[in-house]
Amino acid sequence: MTIAPVKPWTHTESLHQVAEEIERFFLSKVSNADRYGSHYRDLWERAATHTRGGKMMRPWLALAAFDALAPKARSKEASAAVVTTAVAVELLHYAFVLHDDVLDADTLRRGSLNLIGSLEKQAIGKLKNHSTGGAAAAHWGNTGAILMGDLLLAKVHQDFARVVLSSHADERLLTLLEHVIEESVAGEWADVGLSHGLVTGSLVTILDMSANKTATYSCELPLRAAAILAGAPRSVEVALGQAGRSLGLAFQLHDDLLTAFGDPAEHGKDPLSDFREGKQTPLIAYAMMTSAWKRIAPLFGKPDLTVAEGLRVREMLDSSGAKDFVQGLIHEQLSEMRSTLAHAQPLVPLAAANVLEEVALRLEGEQS
Amino acid sequence: MTIAPVKPWTHTESLHQVAEEIERFFLSKVSNADRYGSHYRDLWERAATHTRGGKMMRPWLALAAFDALAPKARSKEASAAVVTTAVAVELLHYAFVLHDDVLDADTLRRGSLNLIGSLEKQAIGKLKNHSTGGAAAAHWGNTGAILMGDLLLAKVHQDFARVVLSSHADERLLTLLEHVIEESVAGEWADVGLSHGLVTGSLVTILDMSANKTATYSCELPLRAAAILAGAPRSVEVALGQAGRSLGLAFQLHDDLLTAFGDPAEHGKDPLSDFREGKQTPLIAYAMMTSAWKRIAPLFGKPDLTVAEGLRVREMLDSSGAKDFVQGLIHEQLSEMRSTLAHAQPLVPLAAANVLEEVALRLEGEQS
Repeated sequence: MTIAPVKPWTHTESLHQVAEEIERFFLSKVSNADRYGSHYRDLWERAATHTRGGKMMRPWLALAAFDALAPKARSKEASAAVVTTAVAVELLHYAFVLHDDVLDADTLRRGSLNLIGSLEKQAIGKLKNHSTGGAAAAHWGNTGAILMGDLLLAKVHQDFARVVLSSHADERLLTLLEHVIEESVAGEWADVGLSHGLVTGSLVTILDMSANKTATYSCELPLRAAAILAGAPRSVEVALGQAGRSLGLAFQLHDDLLTAFGDPAEHGKDPLSDFREGKQTPLIAYAMMTSAWKRIAPLFGKPDLTVAEGLRVREMLDSSGAKDFVQGLIHEQLSEMRSTLAHAQPLVPLAAANVLEEVALRLEGEQS
Repeated sequence: MTIAPVKPWTHTESLHQVAEEIERFFLSKVSNADRYGSHYRDLWERAATHTRGGKMMRPWLALAAFDALAPKARSKEASAAVVTTAVAVELLHYAFVLHDDVLDADTLRRGSLNLIGSLEKQAIGKLKNHSTGGAAAAHWGNTGAILMGDLLLAKVHQDFARVVLSSHADERLLTLLEHVIEESVAGEWADVGLSHGLVTGSLVTILDMSANKTATYSCELPLRAAAILAGAPRSVEVALGQAGRSLGLAFQLHDDLLTAFGDPAEHGKDPLSDFREGKQTPLIAYAMMTSAWKRIAPLFGKPDLTVAEGLRVREMLDSSGAKDFVQGLIHEQLSEMRSTLAHAQPLVPLAAANVLEEVALRLEGEQS
């Protein structure tokens, strides 16, 4: 069984609009940045470059769910509002990625340098004659990522606030954003605590952490936001949110498998970084309960893990049954998603359920 | 001439309300935090503790300016809106302090451990038998500060958005917040670039950096927000913003003097950290242009600067004329503030001008 990354979403007309809107946002920031110096302009230029090339699953979910739920004869205002919200959802993802990369000391993404790595490289070039140039360059990279994360987090809130103000969308949109940010932060905090052994890990704690950290903002947010914007009843929003959470957790579990067992040339991440950092994933939580753990433990969280050792950890995780176990969890989450959606019919129209089903089928397709 | 910190503001009834509102906010976060685990509750409890004890100058500015500008017969709604805005202004300060402390690797504030330091100490206690416990503890502290900064930044935006929605305040309030955050971030980015020599420093660049980093959010924001909430004409908002920027820069220059020459027992900061980090301040920019610099340079930016060496830098900065020069800059900024306010009369009522004047007089009083 091979694990492959999920393919990028086909660009519908409105998804094109979202991508264009994101480009326009960065372009306008770049062209107004010079008043704060060329280094500030440079930060925006790099941020624009590094935001490009995402799969756009999150905005796609918002747009497709809105299409399925909104009346056919919708106002221009409503169509603009959903595009703005989809933009914000994608930029929230990037804001989280930036702060996450700082916390994980990651300098790579999709096989290339990320914002931190690219700023670091630039600084190393300029500081090559300084004795403390390496540390200064790393600091410059982290500073850029923290600050750009703040700027994008601010932008996301501005977009949500303006959607509520200008299109008279329900204020619930703001409460939703508040909930999503709190839950994502709580997930991140647990993630770091688990890797340091400051939070006690059980399989339940680790699955909660995964769902809070990723599923909430990646799936629950775009689906619930679409329901609110489409004027759907509260019960539809709740059902989609719940189903979205299951889908998002399945998505995150797939990502854990991909990082551990996938082909780095395809997924573009450092395949050993999770092992080196001692990241607590459901894979690890399962392996810990098997007899294989006593052989994995000395290599897990080893900062100087070699490639050969990394491959050994991977094999041992597979033969311990951890890989099968996590694939089982993915199927479980997708079944739960389907059962939530089935119970919510006819309240949640079939077209809306099919939006989630499309993602679920893709995930299943990439695991065989 | 001694340099002393500015005294805390006397608590008027509405300033009391702001302090209570902040307490209530943290309390409600703490009491809802357990669903994400005791470590998450602990983060909110510590954040609450470390936010207490501020001088509250920023909310005081918002409240006092609003009182001076708003009609006496104001609605309950308007009074509530200004309190919420003042809360947001204070929490924005704290969000910036948290991210700033991460970037500056500061673990102290007002003479005690800050949030980072306190989380670090807690983790060291729990990880004392781990070989990499020290690094993990520092990482835990930084993670907490980055994430709490994000949560507070989100809260500030929620407050601004809700003030605009519920009290039908002008949408300009959102544009103002956007401007302020961008300018503060640009200032911080320049600050870090200047210390690493990645941004070329001149006195003008350094003064711009100081004004952008601190003056905008500390003075311009509360004053302009108050003008918007009071329904004052746009020209009043602009004049108060401009005068506020001068006042805020004077305030920041005073703070630079205080850190370099004040009594650590009074101001509670590490007196050597700016020298160790090689922070570019107007003091340093001036000293660099004098013959004293060749004796200061070998000690400036020295990571292991001793207390004796730090005292020597301090003496040399004083005798180079840098201290007098910066005191001159403070007086210059305060004169500019006064002239802006004088030119804006009678548009800006005397009562509003007096709000800024009160801060100016205090700053002047602490330098003799």
